[in-house]
Amino acid sequence: MKLFTVGPVACYPEVLESVGQQMYSHRSKEYFDLHYETIKLLQDYISTKNEIFLFSSTGTGFMEASVRNCVRKSMLCCVNGSFGERFAEVAQANGITVERLEAPAGTPITSNELEKVLTEKPNLEAVAITHNETSLGLINPLKDLALTAKKHDKLIFVDAVSSMGGTEIKADEWGIDVCFSSSQKCFGVPPGLGIGSVSNKALNLSSTAKNKGWYFDFKVWEEDQKKGRGTPVTPAIPQISGLHTALKMIERKGGKNWYYDLYRQRNQKIRQGIEKLGLSTFPKRGFESPTVSCIKTPQGVEGGVIYEKMRTKGFELAEGYGPLKKSTFRIGNMGWVEMQDIDIMLSSLGNVLKSI
Amino acid sequence: MKLFTVGPVACYPEVLESVGQQMYSHRSKEYFDLHYETIKLLQDYISTKNEIFLFSSTGTGFMEASVRNCVRKSMLCCVNGSFGERFAEVAQANGITVERLEAPAGTPITSNELEKVLTEKPNLEAVAITHNETSLGLINPLKDLALTAKKHDKLIFVDAVSSMGGTEIKADEWGIDVCFSSSQKCFGVPPGLGIGSVSNKALNLSSTAKNKGWYFDFKVWEEDQKKGRGTPVTPAIPQISGLHTALKMIERKGGKNWYYDLYRQRNQKIRQGIEKLGLSTFPKRGFESPTVSCIKTPQGVEGGVIYEKMRTKGFELAEGYGPLKKSTFRIGNMGWVEMQDIDIMLSSLGNVLKSI
Repeated sequence: MKLFTVGPVACYPEVLESVGQQMYSHRSKEYFDLHYETIKLLQDYISTKNEIFLFSSTGTGFMEASVRNCVRKSMLCCVNGSFGERFAEVAQANGITVERLEAPAGTPITSNELEKVLTEKPNLEAVAITHNETSLGLINPLKDLALTAKKHDKLIFVDAVSSMGGTEIKADEWGIDVCFSSSQKCFGVPPGLGIGSVSNKALNLSSTAKNKGWYFDFKVWEEDQKKGRGTPVTPAIPQISGLHTALKMIERKGGKNWYYDLYRQRNQKIRQGIEKLGLSTFPKRGFESPTVSCIKTPQGVEGGVIYEKMRTKGFELAEGYGPLKKSTFRIGNMGWVEMQDIDIMLSSLGNVLKSI
Repeated sequence: MKLFTVGPVACYPEVLESVGQQMYSHRSKEYFDLHYETIKLLQDYISTKNEIFLFSSTGTGFMEASVRNCVRKSMLCCVNGSFGERFAEVAQANGITVERLEAPAGTPITSNELEKVLTEKPNLEAVAITHNETSLGLINPLKDLALTAKKHDKLIFVDAVSSMGGTEIKADEWGIDVCFSSSQKCFGVPPGLGIGSVSNKALNLSSTAKNKGWYFDFKVWEEDQKKGRGTPVTPAIPQISGLHTALKMIERKGGKNWYYDLYRQRNQKIRQGIEKLGLSTFPKRGFESPTVSCIKTPQGVEGGVIYEKMRTKGFELAEGYGPLKKSTFRIGNMGWVEMQDIDIMLSSLGNVLKSI
């Protein structure tokens, strides 16, 4: 198909080397097939009948959207790390009064604490939960937290950026109103795509929201999606195409439970290897994330040093984040990571630690 | 580099076929080099010293951002087509009172009319101009309009989505405060990246804006960019990489003036071919867009029929847009379009027209 269109236009051959595939119109049958099939696959993946929107943004776009479409005055943010902190910051930037439920770094938010706050402050409209706190390698007990918030009839927003795909989420059973993620984490697709499910309750609140803006207006997205027009703005086609490919690959290899197991296995292998090297992970035992491990550096060694030395050996780990930038480093096991890669990485890490 | 990171993570081999290149960390030297070099190339391209941000969004993200960061109460939207209409809609969705300066479809907005409105209504804070009205294949006289608005000391927002790259823009000389585009138009890169320059005046207004949100907060973007951290959210790496490739290619082949000439030549060839086929373009003569031609269908023929028949011949044109959906169709010449492709396309179009 030679493109003479005004939507996504033909890419130069040299550009193609960077982006992988020729474009096609986002108003063509080819795109609509891709769009609606990807949404169906995602609905099955997180067990929801809610609409799923494919935002031309990162996951943080959904953070902003959830607040702006659904909250009028005040909400609760569960904060035990940098991304919980970001949710609070985003809510405040949108004029919302934020109540905080905090836990010390490395400690999960518990449903008992949540129960207490919601009982004491019945006017809070919504609860924001960071499922997997990427900055600390900690997973919060989402199911318990969500069911507690649901009992109090609160809206529930879940930042599932580094968990969706890699660990179980049952959006409808757990009563999640907005559950969002990004392409570039567990699904192993390049960044630039926000993925999120939106409940009817959230859509109804959006209908009467004031000054909610246009770009992330749930009702605008719902209208185009329901009319068969896909998206109101041009979609991030390479990322959507990549996500579709990843979801079909997972389906073929054994489905989401197979994929969850794979995450667990890779993560355990990393954590066992770390312990053998005499290191330990940061979060409270039992709440270690299955997608990213946050590791305490040896006494007197800064995380940045380990990060840089590992780069010279051909491994990009992640530095610590926020307040733990110096005292930790992180090892992700998201996307395309093979078991033998983990062996070689651990062996290199052992050499790096000896050399310091 | 084997990725064990928590930023953009490694893509599966099968996904790579869709997205073209392996990912790397957006906090790595590799990304920062790409980021700041791309920005420098864009600043040269639109002749500005202003900051340029690479939003993880489409161009419409900048439309929302310009309003939300800079306008307090009311602004003027120049509307002579569907995308001017969208700017007004976006402004209203953000709680702004919109004054409209309209021209009939196919007719440009003139600086005389703008002068008149701005003299009559001195309290308007900003003027939004659609440079190239993609829906009608019409180019508005941006330089004249911008200089008129500047004379009245108004903020100037320019939707340059389907013009930036393909025709001259001198952002600083013309006094443009926010000048934005998207990756998927004249630069021939896949969709998913918003490109926009932001003046110091706009940044200063952002500093004191209330409830401006977080995702498109100019000050948040400025801070990370100035600190050498690139972007506050994960950038759309494939698109940025593609844009960098496209800009370097243009530079190598003769620079922006060479590229503008190429657009003119391709566009003239299409319009001459159209006339030979007995058809004519929609906009007032002298205001035909150099990037997309809007063509009146023959008497009694709907644009959708031509569009569908051309698809069966392997050409994706564009249907008419908005109110002109049935009575026009559009032929873009953005991105990778070779002269011989135009010949073959026109020949096929001739056959299609005979067959109707």
